Amino acid sequence: MKTPNPARRSERSRQAILGAAFDLVAESGYARLTIEAIAARAGVGKQTIYRWWPSKGAVFVDAFLSRTSDEEGNLALPDTGDLRADLRLVLRAIVDEYNDPGLDTMSRALIVESLNDPAINTEITARIMEPHLEATRERLRGAQRAGQVAEDADLGVAVELLYGPVYHRWILRTAPLTHEYADTVVEFVLGALRVTQAPR
Amino acid sequence: MKTPNPARRSERSRQAILGAAFDLVAESGYARLTIEAIAARAGVGKQTIYRWWPSKGAVFVDAFLSRTSDEEGNLALPDTGDLRADLRLVLRAIVDEYNDPGLDTMSRALIVESLNDPAINTEITARIMEPHLEATRERLRGAQRAGQVAEDADLGVAVELLYGPVYHRWILRTAPLTHEYADTVVEFVLGALRVTQAPR
Repeated sequence: MKTPNPARRSERSRQAILGAAFDLVAESGYARLTIEAIAARAGVGKQTIYRWWPSKGAVFVDAFLSRTSDEEGNLALPDTGDLRADLRLVLRAIVDEYNDPGLDTMSRALIVESLNDPAINTEITARIMEPHLEATRERLRGAQRAGQVAEDADLGVAVELLYGPVYHRWILRTAPLTHEYADTVVEFVLGALRVTQAPR
Repeated sequence: MKTPNPARRSERSRQAILGAAFDLVAESGYARLTIEAIAARAGVGKQTIYRWWPSKGAVFVDAFLSRTSDEEGNLALPDTGDLRADLRLVLRAIVDEYNDPGLDTMSRALIVESLNDPAINTEITARIMEPHLEATRERLRGAQRAGQVAEDADLGVAVELLYGPVYHRWILRTAPLTHEYADTVVEFVLGALRVTQAPR
């Protein structure tokens, strides 16, 4: 196994670069992240990074995904049959993530990058947000089939009703994000989803 | 009225600076805004700006407020007695603002500045967001007194349920912001507010 293997060496460099990008943002914030700093920390040349990524934003999105995908490789929501319990679990976990200083810094960096650069926005939405939203819609479709959610409820909007309030409070820091808060949002959403939409 | 008046001259400079900051962000985005550019556009010295504001972020928050306060000096929500109609009007107006390219650019700049600088975040939340949220809570308190909203509904969370989804969709650009969308959110919120909260 000591034979040099270019593919493995390549993968090792890639992982070192992603790890360096993630750690640098956690330590000093996204605004100070540079390709130079990533290269120095990863022990590779800048040209190695530019061969694989067009910008620091692109490196960072991959770094974020590689770090979080271990836990979230399976995006499916829990489905115990108890919609209230399942949604509470999900929303409490999101609150915990936002209260983790490292993940908070990462996530704010993603939003800033996304607001500054529409291309990064598209990538983040397609690769990070949409899969989560779709997994949530899928859980709600199951609840709809089980008769727990109104048949005509617009699930594309329902998922935003679930995540939007937490997101709003997190970005604006208007009030603390607690488990009790997550539970309150879930109660509201359950109430909303049970109601038949009025005709327009 | 031709007598020199230092207070009036001072106010004229202040208005020129705020107007310049607003226009520069609308034209070139917040990232490119500098105190130098504001001074040049407003026809004042940099030291005049630094006498009144500590940073470009502080100038920009004031510029944003001065431009929007004409229309929004009175933050009270409409109260026709028809909660559905009033909330639709409010949420459709917000959707229209986000769809206005100038206001969209401004608002994204505010969010970026707010994410990068906790001091600006505190100022934006206290001076822009909180008054709006409180005005909305006040409208919902009226509806609560009128028996249209559950007595035990947590109105601090209810306002986030109303604005959070729109905010989420606007920042992440996951889907278009339309009046139909605003109306759907309102229906969900009305459904949520009518429901008595389950005990924890």
